[in-house]
Amino acid sequence: MRTMPDLTHPVAPGGTVGILGGGQLGRMLAMAAARMGLKVVVFAPDRDSPAFQVAGAHIVAAYDDQMALQRFATQVDVITYEFENIPGDTGAFLASLKPVRPNPTALAVIQNRIAEKAFVQKLGIGTAPFASVTSEETARAAFATISAPAVLKTSRLGYDGKGQRMVRAVEDVIAGFETFGRVECILEGFVDFKREMSVVAARGGDGAVACYDIVENLHGDHILRMTLAPAKGPQRLKAEANKIASRLLDAFDYVGVMAVELFEAPDGRLLVNEIAPRVHNSGHWTIDGCTVSQFEQHIRAVCGWPLGDATRHSDAVMTNLLGDEVNAWRTHAALPATAVHLYGKTDARQGRKMGHVTRLYPLGTRPDTFER
Amino acid sequence: MRTMPDLTHPVAPGGTVGILGGGQLGRMLAMAAARMGLKVVVFAPDRDSPAFQVAGAHIVAAYDDQMALQRFATQVDVITYEFENIPGDTGAFLASLKPVRPNPTALAVIQNRIAEKAFVQKLGIGTAPFASVTSEETARAAFATISAPAVLKTSRLGYDGKGQRMVRAVEDVIAGFETFGRVECILEGFVDFKREMSVVAARGGDGAVACYDIVENLHGDHILRMTLAPAKGPQRLKAEANKIASRLLDAFDYVGVMAVELFEAPDGRLLVNEIAPRVHNSGHWTIDGCTVSQFEQHIRAVCGWPLGDATRHSDAVMTNLLGDEVNAWRTHAALPATAVHLYGKTDARQGRKMGHVTRLYPLGTRPDTFER
Repeated sequence: MRTMPDLTHPVAPGGTVGILGGGQLGRMLAMAAARMGLKVVVFAPDRDSPAFQVAGAHIVAAYDDQMALQRFATQVDVITYEFENIPGDTGAFLASLKPVRPNPTALAVIQNRIAEKAFVQKLGIGTAPFASVTSEETARAAFATISAPAVLKTSRLGYDGKGQRMVRAVEDVIAGFETFGRVECILEGFVDFKREMSVVAARGGDGAVACYDIVENLHGDHILRMTLAPAKGPQRLKAEANKIASRLLDAFDYVGVMAVELFEAPDGRLLVNEIAPRVHNSGHWTIDGCTVSQFEQHIRAVCGWPLGDATRHSDAVMTNLLGDEVNAWRTHAALPATAVHLYGKTDARQGRKMGHVTRLYPLGTRPDTFER
Repeated sequence: MRTMPDLTHPVAPGGTVGILGGGQLGRMLAMAAARMGLKVVVFAPDRDSPAFQVAGAHIVAAYDDQMALQRFATQVDVITYEFENIPGDTGAFLASLKPVRPNPTALAVIQNRIAEKAFVQKLGIGTAPFASVTSEETARAAFATISAPAVLKTSRLGYDGKGQRMVRAVEDVIAGFETFGRVECILEGFVDFKREMSVVAARGGDGAVACYDIVENLHGDHILRMTLAPAKGPQRLKAEANKIASRLLDAFDYVGVMAVELFEAPDGRLLVNEIAPRVHNSGHWTIDGCTVSQFEQHIRAVCGWPLGDATRHSDAVMTNLLGDEVNAWRTHAALPATAVHLYGKTDARQGRKMGHVTRLYPLGTRPDTFER
């Protein structure tokens, strides 16, 4: 059922935003809020959370610590989050105390890959073919429908490729289902895509939608390495991405920033791969390439401010600094038209997102090839 | 005597920057440092300092509290400041404990208007004509040299037009000198300038200099209202501003960002009005108009990082929000290509700098006329 966006609690300058999660996304959200004259309280379980360093206040507690959540809620005017794995009970409990944006209903759908894909398809938007696996019998049926190669994933969200495996025979599906502890799984048909892309878009409390330019994403080992903004391609591509994002935002009655990961199929159609109900790594370039970044846009939306202008003023290439790549900060800092963003993390574990660099180019001059 | 820049203490990501002063400049410096993965400790006497909200740690104490200064110094790797009225003893004491950048020598010269102007002239750079007033006798001599109208100011720095008055007769000079408590004063000849301008520039620990584009500043009641970036005018103007800034930075053996306020004389020459040994209100547009802002540039310099690219990617118009003008935040936030920056101050006193807005324009398209 469609409800009207909640505009009864706009958060004016001087008000306080509560952020669940203290990683780099929470950190950049907190910095955007500060720029807008808002105070921030970050709630996270890890004592060393990067976002704590830039927030006026923080609470260290587990996400199921009701006493701490209650204390958190009393200190803030609105609550948002930096990641989609918030326990459902946490969202519901907080929503009983203060506005939680985006609304926990969207979160609940997105937390289940089957519900998410069904939701997307119902809107007439394409996804990879998929089927549910809850038993040996449904495993056989799913494999008969979805031709190999395919990917078996737990239907609940996992992190960075955990809880998923490639399958080529029905035995692989059954074995995977056993390995994942017989929890509900999704079998996804493999999409032979041309490019991986994404669109980051926001919906305000007044129902207005603003989309950043569609971008192309380059991955390595399931981790985003580079984002090219904007994606090269016909104008139609951008229009289609914006239509997909707008339709999803409206259908979820969503308030905040959402990222939609897309596959460009060989025939040029865009298929939804995954929805992230939050700011997204592929939107980091907007800090330097747009007047209003995805982080400020999200805070504007959840605080009931007018959405900002999402137009890009420059082309951009964003490169993640993973693990010890961060040691090259000095080299990056000396490059022309380059902004270096580091997240204040001490332990440069392999593959860990330690920072990113954004190189700007005048509009229309982004190069096509890059040193990786 | 010229010393080599101190490059023995670069501050790498994870290190800590100490900032003296907790106003909006300290706040924006702290946010820039955070973006670079640096920690921040802010030292300021006011419990409600806006910079505290965005810094991982802060110390509330008076600038002459040696115990507190010592504690501050032990917590940081380098010390910088957001304002030029730091007591000389404070700078000297801190410099005995940790690197203080820019160096306190430059600060000492700039804190005295007579020493400052003499320093500038010695480099062959023009200023308004001036003379020292330390007695009735020197008052008469000064007035005989500097023709009316002129401005009498205390030679030590005052705030926002305090400690200064217009004079038209020698009696005004003598009366002003009495009113200011017979402290040393400077009598400055009035410059019939065409425009007020400024150049914000940085010098790194390696002696490299980077200048932002020269800008035009519009004042009202001695307070900056708008900055137009870049200033319109021949290429020669920019070259001359950069030459002035570079010469001053080198002469002071300066490390950090400096702003030079300039008058454009009727004959097109640039005269130095005042030097600010710090980031400056007329450089706020660089947050949105350049890849690396004046705030990040300053932190880069004082931490021994390579200077960033000071090229502007967009034209910009920066408008200060003074006093209750901040109440229009919502209107500004809804404008195209507009970034709103609010400083987290609660009391919107008349004339108080509460925030600023920056409107971006594609390169070369900044309009010439504005609604004030």
